[in-house]
Amino acid sequence: MKLKTIEWIADTNNRLAPGRVRSIDQTALPVKLTYIDTRSVDDIWNAIKELKVRGAPAIGVAAAMGVVLAAQERSTDDVDRVCRRVHKACEYLASSRPTAVNLFRALDRMKTVAELFEGSAPDLVERLACEAVAICEEDAAQCEAIGEHGLMLLKDSDTVLTHCNAGSLATARYGTALAPVYKAREKGMKISVYADETRPLLQGSRLTAWELMQEGIEVTLICDSVAAEVMKEGKIDLVMVGADRIAANGDAANKIGTYGLAVLAKHHGIPFYILAPTTSFDLSISSGDEIPIEERAAEEVVHGFGKQTAPDGVAVYTPAFDVTPAELITAIVCEKGVFRPPFALGDG
Amino acid sequence: MKLKTIEWIADTNNRLAPGRVRSIDQTALPVKLTYIDTRSVDDIWNAIKELKVRGAPAIGVAAAMGVVLAAQERSTDDVDRVCRRVHKACEYLASSRPTAVNLFRALDRMKTVAELFEGSAPDLVERLACEAVAICEEDAAQCEAIGEHGLMLLKDSDTVLTHCNAGSLATARYGTALAPVYKAREKGMKISVYADETRPLLQGSRLTAWELMQEGIEVTLICDSVAAEVMKEGKIDLVMVGADRIAANGDAANKIGTYGLAVLAKHHGIPFYILAPTTSFDLSISSGDEIPIEERAAEEVVHGFGKQTAPDGVAVYTPAFDVTPAELITAIVCEKGVFRPPFALGDG
Repeated sequence: MKLKTIEWIADTNNRLAPGRVRSIDQTALPVKLTYIDTRSVDDIWNAIKELKVRGAPAIGVAAAMGVVLAAQERSTDDVDRVCRRVHKACEYLASSRPTAVNLFRALDRMKTVAELFEGSAPDLVERLACEAVAICEEDAAQCEAIGEHGLMLLKDSDTVLTHCNAGSLATARYGTALAPVYKAREKGMKISVYADETRPLLQGSRLTAWELMQEGIEVTLICDSVAAEVMKEGKIDLVMVGADRIAANGDAANKIGTYGLAVLAKHHGIPFYILAPTTSFDLSISSGDEIPIEERAAEEVVHGFGKQTAPDGVAVYTPAFDVTPAELITAIVCEKGVFRPPFALGDG
Repeated sequence: MKLKTIEWIADTNNRLAPGRVRSIDQTALPVKLTYIDTRSVDDIWNAIKELKVRGAPAIGVAAAMGVVLAAQERSTDDVDRVCRRVHKACEYLASSRPTAVNLFRALDRMKTVAELFEGSAPDLVERLACEAVAICEEDAAQCEAIGEHGLMLLKDSDTVLTHCNAGSLATARYGTALAPVYKAREKGMKISVYADETRPLLQGSRLTAWELMQEGIEVTLICDSVAAEVMKEGKIDLVMVGADRIAANGDAANKIGTYGLAVLAKHHGIPFYILAPTTSFDLSISSGDEIPIEERAAEEVVHGFGKQTAPDGVAVYTPAFDVTPAELITAIVCEKGVFRPPFALGDG
């Protein structure tokens, strides 16, 4: 795994010193690999909103680092002022996207650091940088553990169907749904992948196909509507997808289209796995009915990629996510292991 | 129904005189409504291949008219020469697209006219024009009958989910899947439609949404991956789609994605209807396994909207159609009535 999706670049040799956030501009892929360096919390908010940074775990990391950017803005000796900046930044960043729970969890951690802190303003900034970097490193470690656990679900020569991008670009490293595929390759197994292109924003074709090809993994791109056909043709051994939020009963919100895939997998007798770190678990809600679902702009469907593809003024319904009920999920894989139904995720 | 998808425009007041084919350029929709006038069989072949004319019934009409264009080219008194032109044109046009059986059926009719004809060369050309216009008019009449029969499956205020375009643009008039919707509106019923955008070529957003809006029918556009979600939300009362070829046992080939919709409809307890004229029935094949499925170019997926949306050199699997097995079909509606399983379409 060569790519770093997001990282903190300190201005001095102290890696927790004030600095900037470096992230891959995912809207420029697959045509070119470019990095964005930013020192502004506004730019982080926009990067999340415009999906330059996306994927529930990566959004959490970006938001935490955004809080550090806010805290370090114009150096001050007034620790209360830094605390106020942290709170304001947390409130602001929480408004960027509603569904991924990792965002709120990361912001809560940053707020708690500020609330409990005793010491000088510069030390608080460093302590915040430490927390943000920890969130990033913990995510990478969790993804690697997901890869190890998920590996047990794969046989050599298996073909995985995935949806959207729950690969390394969605996390600090390794990804969630794709982590077992990368781990399998490290162990010399040959796993191939079918990637749904994932309308409207085509994370599957732009990002998943791209990152798998970067790593030399065999990938075949399909339109979302081809998934049922490749299952029927016997080409798919298992489905592996990520999640943006998982309720205590195992209901999982993920990119729109995931629920349909789960129904299709059941019809074809194909195992359907959700892979996500526990940071995507929201045990405060008992079922998926309580997960807020973001609706995206009609423009993304109508003028998706430069050309007008629908009549002016057409009504469009474009939820960004759907909720797959627990009964359609064969297992949920997190860094702690492989959980099978009935799910009671709060008891772990 | 104001629009004429395809028609024969004679050069004189005799409507069966030599002339030209006028058709809507469906690749220019939804941005502008333009008509193509052509006198060349090559242009007809290209219009079918490039989907300027598409939809199984409309392809049949276009091919028949293409044969007339070939027959009338350079006027001659040699009736055998006209016959040879007809045979050559039929062979050529049969190579344009493989799945829609209407194409082959229309060409067979044109060949039979030439084979059985006795008389002068100009009379043969007129007889061929008569046959092509008859194919067009019969299609319009069949679609209207499909609309009348399909109407019995609709209640006032129902919401129909449809896929691809099986509307008036796919036929001479009225369409197949949309014919009951238009008929319902004529009778003062209020039917609304959810239209799948239908990747890769977006016939749903470009054509179905457009033609329904032209007729003042309420339509909501969704990405293909949203179909499962709108079913789950209880927004869909029934699914109505067309077919490109139906085997004797009721298995139906239609636009890729149709099979997945049928599985989803079954899961949600929603009726799933195929609407097609008997010209789309192929009783020479016992099941859908024998239907040849066209594979389209990767380019349509990778550079679909003017921008590159997938990495250079990515493998793509892009079948144009899939086959829905008869057991997932609630009923097949044709001009003769509503057929329910077990289907034995050859016995009618």
